[in-house]
Amino acid sequence: MSVLVVGSIALDTVKTPVEEHGDLLGGSASYAATAASYFSPVKLVGVVGSDFPESEFDFWKKHNIDSEGVQRVNGKTFRWSGEYSWDLNTRETRSVALNVFENFKPALPESYRKTDFVLLANIAPSLQLHVLEQMERPRFVVADTMDLWIETARADLDALLPHVDLLILNDSEAREMTKETSLIKAGNHIREFGPRYVAIKKGEHGALLFGGDEFFSCGAYPLEDIHDPTGAGDTFAGGMAGYLAGTVKEVTFTDLRKAMIYGSVLASFCVEAFSLERLRNLSMDEINERYEVFKTMSQFDLPT
Amino acid sequence: MSVLVVGSIALDTVKTPVEEHGDLLGGSASYAATAASYFSPVKLVGVVGSDFPESEFDFWKKHNIDSEGVQRVNGKTFRWSGEYSWDLNTRETRSVALNVFENFKPALPESYRKTDFVLLANIAPSLQLHVLEQMERPRFVVADTMDLWIETARADLDALLPHVDLLILNDSEAREMTKETSLIKAGNHIREFGPRYVAIKKGEHGALLFGGDEFFSCGAYPLEDIHDPTGAGDTFAGGMAGYLAGTVKEVTFTDLRKAMIYGSVLASFCVEAFSLERLRNLSMDEINERYEVFKTMSQFDLPT
Repeated sequence: MSVLVVGSIALDTVKTPVEEHGDLLGGSASYAATAASYFSPVKLVGVVGSDFPESEFDFWKKHNIDSEGVQRVNGKTFRWSGEYSWDLNTRETRSVALNVFENFKPALPESYRKTDFVLLANIAPSLQLHVLEQMERPRFVVADTMDLWIETARADLDALLPHVDLLILNDSEAREMTKETSLIKAGNHIREFGPRYVAIKKGEHGALLFGGDEFFSCGAYPLEDIHDPTGAGDTFAGGMAGYLAGTVKEVTFTDLRKAMIYGSVLASFCVEAFSLERLRNLSMDEINERYEVFKTMSQFDLPT
Repeated sequence: MSVLVVGSIALDTVKTPVEEHGDLLGGSASYAATAASYFSPVKLVGVVGSDFPESEFDFWKKHNIDSEGVQRVNGKTFRWSGEYSWDLNTRETRSVALNVFENFKPALPESYRKTDFVLLANIAPSLQLHVLEQMERPRFVVADTMDLWIETARADLDALLPHVDLLILNDSEAREMTKETSLIKAGNHIREFGPRYVAIKKGEHGALLFGGDEFFSCGAYPLEDIHDPTGAGDTFAGGMAGYLAGTVKEVTFTDLRKAMIYGSVLASFCVEAFSLERLRNLSMDEINERYEVFKTMSQFDLPT
């Protein structure tokens, strides 16, 4: 089945302690859609300006990413620029120019309205809700969010959450949202806001998954070198949603465990190069090889 | 087989944001020996003062912890006092009085010299080496260390490491020791200093294990409430070493995976109460129940 992905599409400038690159494809939807496309067809929703390279539309087409829902508007594409700290663990936004994104109001093409799986990648929760309102009863809704919306649009977020099946957020956001220091308490607490399942991303420390009375914990893929962490969280969400859409009819906690590993695998490729460079040309063999590494690195109850 | 445990024995005063308690049994050897004793007989090496409660010797006896190697010296027992931050993630030492520990020179009773498994719990690396020098070819040596020794006794530590099979340290210490930001690089780098295996503790994020071309990653037991983190690392090391001594003849990476889970299980009990309160009266059923939780929370390649 397909997955509808809505989010931002941007042109980024990224500075790490070692390198700086500009005019990079970025935005939550770009990363999420590409990651998802390894597992299922994608219907992309977003907005770009007149400066946006036509070659990306070609890339999407090749990757089974339907871009009928991507509006091209006169003006400049959303631009973001950020700089990472020496250890790549924190970053500072150097500039943001919303441009055509400022008045973005996602409008779903008729052919998108019945999509069964939805990924509301990171954008304002009011826009995420607006997308859901145009859809006919999706089976499973995944939403990603960030500290900005927790701080500035909490009412919108609270209105969205009862419609979300799986909420994805990072550890500091989970703590901020619940005022709980324990991530275990935070994960369970967030489920009371609406989502049946909650995934907490912990960067180099992996991720946690909460649902019903079940709990799942996985590490991160063991990478020696990280070149650009931008988009890792969006890629994780895209990998999860894509795997579910492509593989599963009725989502269970068992499916979500695997989905989280595939999300982690895709995120591990994402951070190995700037922008989407490493994500653009993966093979399923490469993906499954890392899936096997996750199996090997987490098993312990083996015969000796 | 038995495990020899050497380290500090202290009387602690611990303040958390919620509670403060004094005259608590503490010290790296106290935690490590108690944790190890659930899996194998322990031979304890340390020093206490004339103020040290006789009841602890009774507890050790009941717990199959041989205290022939614990010297009782005139004077006061080593005292440590610390205070935790609001989220229990950092702590400040309020006072340290070495007392009888200042001139401690571990002397092994004759009956200890042939012990096959050794845990050099956290004390000065020169003392750790001094213990090894009195032993007859132990099969497997586990050592724990801390930032203090990395900063102030690096030459001693470097002299010790070639004699260590498994080095245990926490994430910030691994980074400090190697100047690597990546824990994956740090873990592999430390093996070049001598230890065949390296375990990196990450507190609430679990632990990593490095050896040969193998890698293992586990999460932490999902606790909602932590009361006192003191001794968790010592308990982890004690659980690992005790499991190995009690179960294994020739240690393999497969054994170390399980040992790390048992260490994590013991540490999860440790932090649920002040001092050793929760560690004193565990049943093997309680321990194995948490081992099963680790299995359930980390498996993902299940039939759907």
